[in-house]
Amino acid sequence: MADLEFFYDFVSPYSYLASTRIEAEVRRAGGAVRFRPFLLGAVFKATGNRAPLDTPAKEAHMWVDLQRWSRRLGVPLVRPATFPVLTVLPLRAALAAEKAGALVPFTHAVYRAYWVEGRDISQAEVVEEAARRAGLDGPALVAAAPGYKEALARQTQEAVDRGAFGAPTYFVGGEMFVGNDRLDFAIEALVAANRP
Amino acid sequence: MADLEFFYDFVSPYSYLASTRIEAEVRRAGGAVRFRPFLLGAVFKATGNRAPLDTPAKEAHMWVDLQRWSRRLGVPLVRPATFPVLTVLPLRAALAAEKAGALVPFTHAVYRAYWVEGRDISQAEVVEEAARRAGLDGPALVAAAPGYKEALARQTQEAVDRGAFGAPTYFVGGEMFVGNDRLDFAIEALVAANRP
Repeated sequence: MADLEFFYDFVSPYSYLASTRIEAEVRRAGGAVRFRPFLLGAVFKATGNRAPLDTPAKEAHMWVDLQRWSRRLGVPLVRPATFPVLTVLPLRAALAAEKAGALVPFTHAVYRAYWVEGRDISQAEVVEEAARRAGLDGPALVAAAPGYKEALARQTQEAVDRGAFGAPTYFVGGEMFVGNDRLDFAIEALVAANRP
Repeated sequence: MADLEFFYDFVSPYSYLASTRIEAEVRRAGGAVRFRPFLLGAVFKATGNRAPLDTPAKEAHMWVDLQRWSRRLGVPLVRPATFPVLTVLPLRAALAAEKAGALVPFTHAVYRAYWVEGRDISQAEVVEEAARRAGLDGPALVAAAPGYKEALARQTQEAVDRGAFGAPTYFVGGEMFVGNDRLDFAIEALVAANRP
């Protein structure tokens, strides 16, 4: 049975949009999704790719496009006061949450803090609160985060080695798909891979 | 009645994909589409945006993604031997074709030559043949093309002034949409604009 790997960073609004429906879509396709946080800034550095906000006209359009997606999917999305934001702490904390068996609820809680409530997720207290919402011990999770520095770097490098250059990135077997707007292609591949 | 403006360059594969269905989609929405060729290289220069092929991992994924779109839409798409290609000649010729009332068939003929047959559309004889297929006098069109240098620059600058940074770009009233994968948003806006 093929699964779908979902590489995402909390700073990426299109990853947030994908996160709001990826579990339901994958379930409907009869597969499983594996959440895999990675550091998008390091991906950009490794590949030479650039964020939309490096091109002013592109960033301006991005905010409009995000509102269109928010309406289409029926999910809230605000423009955070701090954008971009340094996500090293919540990403390392996510790997600690994975160890604790709560990666998925923690991921949703961080996305909610940043893309729904517009809070600064580089701050320890915001990460702690997201952890609490995910049923975890907030201060313990934040204290454990630095221990996942290497694990985050490895997971990021793995994605780069497999061809990733942005977020969200999905893998289904050997096939790579990029963007919230390519989730449908990834789901089609999952369905095809799991056909008897 | 609102119309949809379609800014495109022949070198842009996603513009080609949009061109294969934009007339049918706009017609179904009860509007009209205005074809507006522009020089994508000048748009990149003006906005600081970069082509996918400036990032090797992105270009590699682009060719895979294009084949997925080709299958989904059921339209042929090859990887031309000459990519990118200098499109100044066919774009200026397109404006000459517009003057002759044959912009749309000429556009489809150039797209076919490049993205279906993989020919080098920077060459006069290829442009001439596309013109003939569109019912035009090929050599006369190519001879007239240099006279549209300023017109092409003006049309390109207009798009940049309105916020364009890539191709294809659509405008419906004051709203801008970017990408083959955003044609559906543009069509929705057209339907909304033409609602009584």
